[in-house]
Amino acid sequence: MNNERYERGAATLAAVDGPAGLAVVEALGRSFPEFARYLVEFPFGDIYARKELGLRERELATVAALCALGHALPQLRVHVHAALHVGCTPAEVVEVVMQMAVYAGFPAALNGLTVVREVFAESGIQLPLARDPAFS
Amino acid sequence: MNNERYERGAATLAAVDGPAGLAVVEALGRSFPEFARYLVEFPFGDIYARKELGLRERELATVAALCALGHALPQLRVHVHAALHVGCTPAEVVEVVMQMAVYAGFPAALNGLTVVREVFAESGIQLPLARDPAFS
Amino acid sequence: MNNERYERGAATLAAVDGPAGLAVVEALGRSFPEFARYLVEFPFGDIYARKELGLRERELATVAALCALGHALPQLRVHVHAALHVGCTPAEVVEVVMQMAVYAGFPAALNGLTVVREVFAESGIQLPLARDPAFS
Amino acid sequence: MNNERYERGAATLAAVDGPAGLAVVEALGRSFPEFARYLVEFPFGDIYARKELGLRERELATVAALCALGHALPQLRVHVHAALHVGCTPAEVVEVVMQMAVYAGFPAALNGLTVVREVFAESGIQLPLARDPAFS
Amino acid sequence: MNNERYERGAATLAAVDGPAGLAVVEALGRSFPEFARYLVEFPFGDIYARKELGLRERELATVAALCALGHALPQLRVHVHAALHVGCTPAEVVEVVMQMAVYAGFPAALNGLTVVREVFAESGIQLPLARDPAFS
Amino acid sequence: MNNERYERGAATLAAVDGPAGLAVVEALGRSFPEFARYLVEFPFGDIYARKELGLRERELATVAALCALGHALPQLRVHVHAALHVGCTPAEVVEVVMQMAVYAGFPAALNGLTVVREVFAESGIQLPLARDPAFS
Repeated sequence: MNNERYERGAATLAAVDGPAGLAVVEALGRSFPEFARYLVEFPFGDIYARKELGLRERELATVAALCALGHALPQLRVHVHAALHVGCTPAEVVEVVMQMAVYAGFPAALNGLTVVREVFAESGIQLPLARDPAFS
Repeated sequence: MNNERYERGAATLAAVDGPAGLAVVEALGRSFPEFARYLVEFPFGDIYARKELGLRERELATVAALCALGHALPQLRVHVHAALHVGCTPAEVVEVVMQMAVYAGFPAALNGLTVVREVFAESGIQLPLARDPAFS
Repeated sequence: MNNERYERGAATLAAVDGPAGLAVVEALGRSFPEFARYLVEFPFGDIYARKELGLRERELATVAALCALGHALPQLRVHVHAALHVGCTPAEVVEVVMQMAVYAGFPAALNGLTVVREVFAESGIQLPLARDPAFS
Repeated sequence: MNNERYERGAATLAAVDGPAGLAVVEALGRSFPEFARYLVEFPFGDIYARKELGLRERELATVAALCALGHALPQLRVHVHAALHVGCTPAEVVEVVMQMAVYAGFPAALNGLTVVREVFAESGIQLPLARDPAFS
Repeated sequence: MNNERYERGAATLAAVDGPAGLAVVEALGRSFPEFARYLVEFPFGDIYARKELGLRERELATVAALCALGHALPQLRVHVHAALHVGCTPAEVVEVVMQMAVYAGFPAALNGLTVVREVFAESGIQLPLARDPAFS
Repeated sequence: MNNERYERGAATLAAVDGPAGLAVVEALGRSFPEFARYLVEFPFGDIYARKELGLRERELATVAALCALGHALPQLRVHVHAALHVGCTPAEVVEVVMQMAVYAGFPAALNGLTVVREVFAESGIQLPLARDPAFS
C-alpha cells in the first residue's frame, strides 16, 4: 500500500482544487474505490506533486488539453474551477479556451466556453469580463 | 486588405518563434499564399497578440493541446521550439508533455516526448535533464 | 477594427444560416464579445466568403466534418439547419451523415443521425424520407 | 436484397445483446430504415458473425474502443450491457474501462465508469464490486 | 457470397478513383482478402453506390472528414486523388481542406494541405493555384 | 521510492511483452528516466498486475483501443507483438483490428492492418492467414 504516494496525492489535490476535488474522488470511491485510489496516486501523487512546474501553469495546460480533446467536458468543468482556485485569473482561463479555436477548431472552443460560462456563474464571476474597452 | 492585422501577426509570430516561425509561413505561402496569410492573421494577429495571457503561458498551453490531440506532431515540433524561444525551461516543457499522460493517455505523451527529444537534440539540450537527483 | 471583414462575415453568416446563425453569435457575444467577433470574422468573413466553393458544398463538407469529429454535436445541429437553408435536400444531408459510418465509424454516424432527426422534426421534415421504395 | 446477410446479422445481434439490441435497431429503422439495415448487415452480419474470435472477446474489445474514442457514450452503454449479456463478468468490464486510463487518459476512463455505473444500476449489479478485500 | 454487392462496389470504386482505387484494394487483398472484400462491399457497394448524392459531393465530404479526423492521412491522399478524378477542381479541394481549419484546427488543415501538395505534384497541378489575383 | 510497485510492474511488463517491452522502457529511460519509471509503475505495476482480467483479454482490449485512437501506431506495434506474446492467435489480432472498422471507421482499421502486417512479417507469420477457405 503506497500510503506515502496517496497522502502526497491527496494533499496535492487539495492544493489544486480545494474541497471540491476531494469530493469528486470521494464520490468516485463509493462505486470504484480502487480507481479512486489510482486517480489520487498517479495524477496527483506522481505528476502534479512534482516541483518543476507551477500549479498555475499546470492548470492552464490542463484546461487547454481538456478543451482540445473535446470529449472531456465534465473534467474541464473541474479544472476551470481548479484553475481559478490556484490563482489563474478569469481572463487567463478564457484566453486559453479561446486559443484552442486555433489548434482544435471553433467547436471545441465554443463547447469549452459553455463550460467556462457555467463555472463562472457558479463562482459569481460576471461575463463579459471588463477587459478590453476597445471591443465592448 | 487587413495590413494592420497581418503586420501585428507577423510581429507576434516573430516574438513567439523567431526566424523559424516566419520560415514556416514563407514555405507554406509558396504553395498556399492565402492560407499562409490566414495563419498569420488569425492565430497570431488576433489570438497570440492579445495581452491577457503571457507568451510563456500560451506556449505551454499550446504544447499541451498539440500533444493531447495526437495528430499534430509536426506542429508540436514547432511549438516545443517556440516554448523554449519565449523562455520556458526545458524542464517545464517536459513536465507539460508528461502531464498529458494523465489526460490523453501514455501513447500521446510518449509520442510527444519523441518530438521533445528531437527538438532538444537540435537545440543542444542534453537529456536526461539534471533535475531530480532522487530519481536518477 | 476590421469592419469590412466583420460586415462581410455577418452577411455571409446570414446567407448560410439566416436569422438562426446571427442569433447564435448574438447569444455568444453577450458573454464573450471578442470571441463572437472572431467567429464572424475568420470562419465567415475569411473562409465561407470565398467564391471558389459553393455554399451547398461548404455545408455538406462541414456536416461531414462535424459528424466525424464526434465532439461537435451542438455545432452539427447548427449546420444541419444551415445545410437545409442553403438548399441541400434532406436526403443529401442524411447521405453525408450515413457516409461517415465508413470514415469515422458507426457511433459517430448514429450520433449524427440523432441530431439530424431532431433538426428535421423542428423543420417539419418527415422521417423516413420517401426515397427508395425498394427499402421501405 | 442480401437477405442471408441480414438474417445472419439479426441472429448475431440477438446473440450479442438479446432483445435490447434488436430494439435499438427497430427504433433506428423507424427514421432511417436503410441505415438500420446496414447496421445489421455489416457490423453483425459480416464482422461479429465471424468465428475467429469469441463474442466475449469481441465485446471486451468494443467496450475498450468505445471508451477510448470518447464521443461514443450512447454506444458504450449498449455494449456494456452486451458484454454482460455474452458472459463477461462485471469485474472484467470494469477492468477494461479502468485500463483505458492508460491509453486514452483518465477523462475517457472516468466518463466510461459513469456509463458502467448506470448500466450496472439498471442491471441490479451492486457497486463497489466485492473484489479485492485489500482495497475496500 | 454477395456477388452483386461486390460487383456493384468494384464498379463504383472504379468510377470514384479509376485504376488507383482498384490497385489499393488489390494490394490490401494480398494480405487481408476478407477485409478487402468488405472494403469494396460496404463503403462502395452499399454507400457510394446510392443515388441520393453525387460523387463530387461525396468526395468533398470525404476529404473534409479525413482531414478533420487527423489520423487518416494515407486515406486522405487516396481521396484527394479521387476528388480530382470525379471532377472536383483543384481549387475546390483546397477550399475544403482550408475550411477544416475552422472546424478541426489549423494543424489538421496544415497536415491536409501537405497531402494536397503531394498529390497535386504527382498529378501535374501547379501550386499556387492562379485563383485570386487580389491575394497573390 | 515505490520499489514494490516498480518491481511488480517490471515483472508484469516482462510477462506481457518479454525482452522487447523492457527494451522499450530502457530506451525511454535514457532520455526521460522518471517517465520511464511511471510507465512501469502505473500501467504495469497497478493496472496490468490486477488479477480480475487475463493478459490475453487485456491485450485484445489494448489493440482495439490503440487502433481506434488513430494516433497511437507506434504503441499499437508494441501491443500487436505483446498480444502474440501472451498467446493471442494471429487470427484473433486480425479480427480485433478488422472490428475497429465498425467503431472507428475504415481508415483506423486500415492503418492498424498496416501495423499488423509489419509485425507479422518480423515474426514470421505468413499473410493471408489460412483461415477461411470460402473466401480465399
